[in-house]
Formats: sequence, C-alpha cells, structure tokens
Amino acid sequence: MSKQALVPKVEDKVHLDEFDPDYTGNYADEDEAKRDRDKDLEKLRDLQEVFYAEQKHSLLVVFQAMDTAGKDGVIEHVFLGLNPQGVHVASFKKPTEEELGHDFLWRIHPHTPRKGMISVFNRSHYEDVLVVRVHDLVPKKVWKKRYDHINAFEELLHDNGTTILKFFLHISKDEQKKRLESRRDTPRKQWKFMLGDLEERKLWDSYMEAYEDVLSKTNTDYAPWHIVPANNKWYRDYIVTKTILDAMEEMKCEYPKPAENIAGIVIPD
Amino acid sequence: MSKQALVPKVEDKVHLDEFDPDYTGNYADEDEAKRDRDKDLEKLRDLQEVFYAEQKHSLLVVFQAMDTAGKDGVIEHVFLGLNPQGVHVASFKKPTEEELGHDFLWRIHPHTPRKGMISVFNRSHYEDVLVVRVHDLVPKKVWKKRYDHINAFEELLHDNGTTILKFFLHISKDEQKKRLESRRDTPRKQWKFMLGDLEERKLWDSYMEAYEDVLSKTNTDYAPWHIVPANNKWYRDYIVTKTILDAMEEMKCEYPKPAENIAGIVIPD
Repeated sequence: MSKQALVPKVEDKVHLDEFDPDYTGNYADEDEAKRDRDKDLEKLRDLQEVFYAEQKHSLLVVFQAMDTAGKDGVIEHVFLGLNPQGVHVASFKKPTEEELGHDFLWRIHPHTPRKGMISVFNRSHYEDVLVVRVHDLVPKKVWKKRYDHINAFEELLHDNGTTILKFFLHISKDEQKKRLESRRDTPRKQWKFMLGDLEERKLWDSYMEAYEDVLSKTNTDYAPWHIVPANNKWYRDYIVTKTILDAMEEMKCEYPKPAENIAGIVIPD
Repeated sequence: MSKQALVPKVEDKVHLDEFDPDYTGNYADEDEAKRDRDKDLEKLRDLQEVFYAEQKHSLLVVFQAMDTAGKDGVIEHVFLGLNPQGVHVASFKKPTEEELGHDFLWRIHPHTPRKGMISVFNRSHYEDVLVVRVHDLVPKKVWKKRYDHINAFEELLHDNGTTILKFFLHISKDEQKKRLESRRDTPRKQWKFMLGDLEERKLWDSYMEAYEDVLSKTNTDYAPWHIVPANNKWYRDYIVTKTILDAMEEMKCEYPKPAENIAGIVIPD
C-alpha cells in the first residue's frame, strides 16, 4: 500500500486500495498536527485578507466523499476562521425538477467564485458521475461523456483565474461503520442518521469504482484531485488546510494600489 | 442625549442626535466587553449548530451605515466563529442594468435565508431609500412608496419563520473623519480609500435625514431596527453579538428527532 501519494499523477489510473486512509504522514500524534494546522489557519486568514482585497484570483474548493467521511466537519474546521464575507459554501443536494430540466452544470455555474472569493462545494457536479452512475439514473452513454464536460468546464474556470482544488476524503468501509454506529448512538448526532445511508453503504464497491474513474479521468493539471487520508479527522483537517494554504501562497496576492494619489488629501470636517 | 435606547419605540419618530455614538453602556473598558463578547460568541456557535440542524427557523441580519462605520468589521468579528456552511453573506453594490430593470426587491429576495440558514446583508434594500433618495436617482413619488413595500416584504419573510434583525451602525461625523484619515495613512487600508467617499461625506446631513426616515418608517415589531453606538468598535461588536444571541436563544431550537427508530439498527460490515 503506497502511503505517500496524495495527488495522483495525471496520467495514472487510480486504484483506491493503494491509498491508505489511515495514513498520517510524519505525525505520530494528534496534538502536533493540530498545532501545525492552527498555525496554518492563522496564515491562511492573513492571506485571505489580501486575496479578498486584491480581487484578482478566485478559489474553488470541492469536497467529495462517502457518507460520514467528514465533508461537513472539514468545511467547518477549515473555513470557520476566514472572513465569512469572502467565503461562499454551496451544498448540492438531490436536484430539483427545474435543475433536471437543464444540463448538469447549469445549477453549478452560478456558485463558482468571483474574483476575491472562495467558493466551497459540499458535493458538486461530480455527483452526476457518482450517485447518478451507481443508481443508473441516466444511461451510460450520457454519463460517460460527462468527464469531458467536467474537464472543459473546469478549464474554463481555470482560464478565468480560478484556482481549483478538489478533495476526495478517503475513509475505509470499517471506519464508516464505526461512524454510523456513533451517529446511531449519540443523541445530538442522531438527526443525521438516515436509513438511506445504509442502502448506499451496500453499494460501497460500486462507489469506489465510480470514484476511481472520477479520480483518473478528471485529474488534470489545472484542477488536480487530492486524495485525503480521512480515517483520522485531525490529519484530514491538517492536509486540507495545508493544501489550501500552499495554493494561496502561490498566488502571491498583494493589496491593490490605492485608486488615487491620496497622500495629500485633506478630509474636510 | 438619551443613552439607553438601542431599539426605538415603534411609534417614535427617530432623531439620531438623541442617540450617542460614543455610548458604551456599563463597560468602562474594552477588555471586559471583549471578554463578554467572546463568551457570547461561544454560546452563539453552540446555538447555531442546533439551529442549523433543526431547519425550522431562519435569520436575516441587515447592516446599514455610513462609510467606515464598520459593516465589514462587524461581519468579520461576529460571524467568523460560526459554521460557514450555515452563513450566507450578501453584499449589495450599485445595481446592474438588469437589476435596475426589475423592482428594487428583485435582487434581494434570492438572498433571504432558507430554514436553518443565517443571511447577512452588507447594505441591502434600504439603499433604495438612502443613496437613491439622497442622489435623486428616482423621483420622490417612487421612493416614498418604498417604505411600505419594504414593510410588506419583511412581514412576508417574518410570517415564513424568518427572524429579522436590522442594525444601523451609528458613528459621528468626527469619527468618520478620523477613520478616513487612518485609511489614507495606513498602507494596507489605502485600497479602501475612494475619493467618492468624500463626496458622500459632504452629504452627511441629507443621509442622516434619510436614515431617520428609515429608522422611523420601517421600525416594526416583526423587523425592528437596532441603533448601535459604533464610535467604539469593541462596543459595536459586543452589542451586535449580544442582540443576535438573544434572538437565537428565543427561538429555543432543538435537535430534530431522528427520522427512524434507530436504536436497534445494526450496521452491516
């Protein structure tokens, strides 16, 4: 089991069993990773301030995962410290009838980030080659063309100055079992427990196969996938934070120059 | 100068010079207010978790103020600690041509909060009886009917389960001068300095008059205005936090009952 590769090579066919969901890198314990994460979150916050002011770049962060893998958790832990005015979280649920009357990217496009903004997708257009495929909601000849549509769409965003980071939160089937049991047994989590989740769990292998295709066919230079070992929540949060921080550092944002030569301007009473 | 009333009585005509922008309540110093605010933010965070899970209520928070009064600052300080997935911040700038082709509430309505969500408006539909009135952008016979339109719109939201909190951040003209000077002289703030702000400052008295009408005519039981003394940023943040906390406590949110009787359910391997 390879423990290193978080980002598959673009030409590779991904085999998820080569990625260890228990991997925790160089961290022997949680405390150290949390300390580093908190430091990174501080830096991220400072960078976001300049990014927001500059209005030159935009950032799209996509989360996909099996139930209980921690999409909600990671969004809360990573983005909670940022200026909420610069962050837009979009959760994509079962499409409405109107949405189904359009192409599958129609409901996605309005939520892409404008310059200076971060958009966070909790599920995304990838559901249209995941749940849709596993449940045969559209014929294969329709969904199999969608990988190309997705790549073209993401290239459009990229060419317009959007940095795209896609995270697959990778948990094991055993870990999901533990988490579903915890949901079942913890009063303040029970509202999240749905019988439907058990039906989805039965389709685990079909989902893994669908994810492997996603991670292989839509892993591009301009919108790479990150396979995040997510059995340990603290490592998951650390990796996602660090990856976003690295991407924002690369933008080298700067405060915009003031619109006018303002040094000598007197403010009247 | 009355120092107490943060919420004008519904039948009152508001005179802003009766509200002291320097007022700091029982707080002699900043540290104590910040400690209390931080405690309130913790409570608010816990409440939001239940509010988000319950999906029964929604919350709309509106900020209006003169330039530099701290709309951006208060949004950052109060909402940064909440789960970003449950918060939507909408900033309303100069309307586009398409928006102007519709009634003035058309661009606002899509941003009102769904159940479980908090929407935060940085500026709002009130600009259509503020900047629009001060600059004569539409005839008086048009804008003077808008107070009733606003009240009807807000009652609609209220009747659908939305709690509405409207904050006017009240600073003095002197305080604005200091803050504009600070913007002019502080490199990382200079990008926010616009010559146009000085033109608006010249119209201070007309704006105060327009605000007094807003605060008198649209201060309803179902959508009250809060006049926040905002010369001291720490008191402004404290009051806004406390007001939101009180409103959320009143909702008495509870975690929803689990959808099924789940106690005995076995999670298969």
